[in-house]
Amino acid sequence: MTPPPESEAVVDLLGALAYGELTAFERLAEDSSMAPHLVDKAELAAMACAEFRHHRMLSERLALLGADVSAAMRPFVASFDEFHGRTRPADWLEGLVKAYVGDGIAEDFYREVAGLVDESTRALVLEVSADTGHSEFVVDRVRRATDADPVVAGRLALWGRRIVGEALAQAQRTVAERESLARLLMGDGTTPGVDLGGVTRLFARVTDRHSARMQALGLAA
Amino acid sequence: MTPPPESEAVVDLLGALAYGELTAFERLAEDSSMAPHLVDKAELAAMACAEFRHHRMLSERLALLGADVSAAMRPFVASFDEFHGRTRPADWLEGLVKAYVGDGIAEDFYREVAGLVDESTRALVLEVSADTGHSEFVVDRVRRATDADPVVAGRLALWGRRIVGEALAQAQRTVAERESLARLLMGDGTTPGVDLGGVTRLFARVTDRHSARMQALGLAA
Repeated sequence: MTPPPESEAVVDLLGALAYGELTAFERLAEDSSMAPHLVDKAELAAMACAEFRHHRMLSERLALLGADVSAAMRPFVASFDEFHGRTRPADWLEGLVKAYVGDGIAEDFYREVAGLVDESTRALVLEVSADTGHSEFVVDRVRRATDADPVVAGRLALWGRRIVGEALAQAQRTVAERESLARLLMGDGTTPGVDLGGVTRLFARVTDRHSARMQALGLAA
Repeated sequence: MTPPPESEAVVDLLGALAYGELTAFERLAEDSSMAPHLVDKAELAAMACAEFRHHRMLSERLALLGADVSAAMRPFVASFDEFHGRTRPADWLEGLVKAYVGDGIAEDFYREVAGLVDESTRALVLEVSADTGHSEFVVDRVRRATDADPVVAGRLALWGRRIVGEALAQAQRTVAERESLARLLMGDGTTPGVDLGGVTRLFARVTDRHSARMQALGLAA
């Protein structure tokens, strides 16, 4: 059986997602150590484990497709690590904003790409990209902090802009460097894809949704 | 309804366990960032999330008993944090040995105390103290490392002794400082408990099992 033309891109997409979820686990677990209260610590730990559960689901699918899970993740290690290295939260609140805004951008991006792959992959991508229901917690904590000290809002707004800038830069770089993802996104005659204008509009949609998220946090986009 | 005489000790026991599991989550998540391979990283993350699942079960039980979860954990924060502060692994292998040996001691201790509480608490304590099936992974990785470089075995054996020393010191301090736990352990005429000789034998049993674990790792106890 010849693998379908998009199978390389599917392994790439799932590999990127799988590594993304693993780093999300690590980062949230790290942030939990900055939590001011035990309840907050447990909440961040719960978010971390939700991401790890997604990582597991993606790993299982990759294994089912006959892919080596580590090999599938490896091409994306550098760009995720660079993103996290460039956006290290200095405190608990920056960690919360990064979790909310960073995961939001990643999920929007994956949901957009999900429209271009087979149905079964799409269902999995949509499932792991669904809001895990922890957003309310982040919104509550950030709003409480900015209500108590309006100066914090200015600092966190700047921080949010830095996150979205780095995230979009890494996403663009990743697509540019992985031919299979570029082909998936742009199409190659045999697969649907979107044209260059479509890619621009995709990034514009992701940016719009980012602005809506910043607004939900009570921060200037 | 008057609460049973041992209910304070039950809340203490569950509170200590709940905080212990939360710190175990944090520590394993932190160790996962030192993993040499992506597969190892995911394995440590899985161990961390298993501990967090236990934390959740204990929190739910505490809430069911009408206890405030944070308040129940708070008396044990200092001693767990001191234990972890005094036993920071310098590398991946020390982290693995600490996870295996430290969790083993804690679980042995909890299982011993479980014999002194009501049946429903006992069932929960035994469930969260059961081996989560990750020991094989640790044994494999440590044995591989010591096979490759026998010098490592000496260093890790010393490390294991430090872990058990600190763990027993903190356990003794905690029991001495929390009257309800001391009463649970020693009995107060109305509850079963063990006498002072029994407590000494309990610590001896925990130490024996520690030696068996070091042997399983191929390390001198």
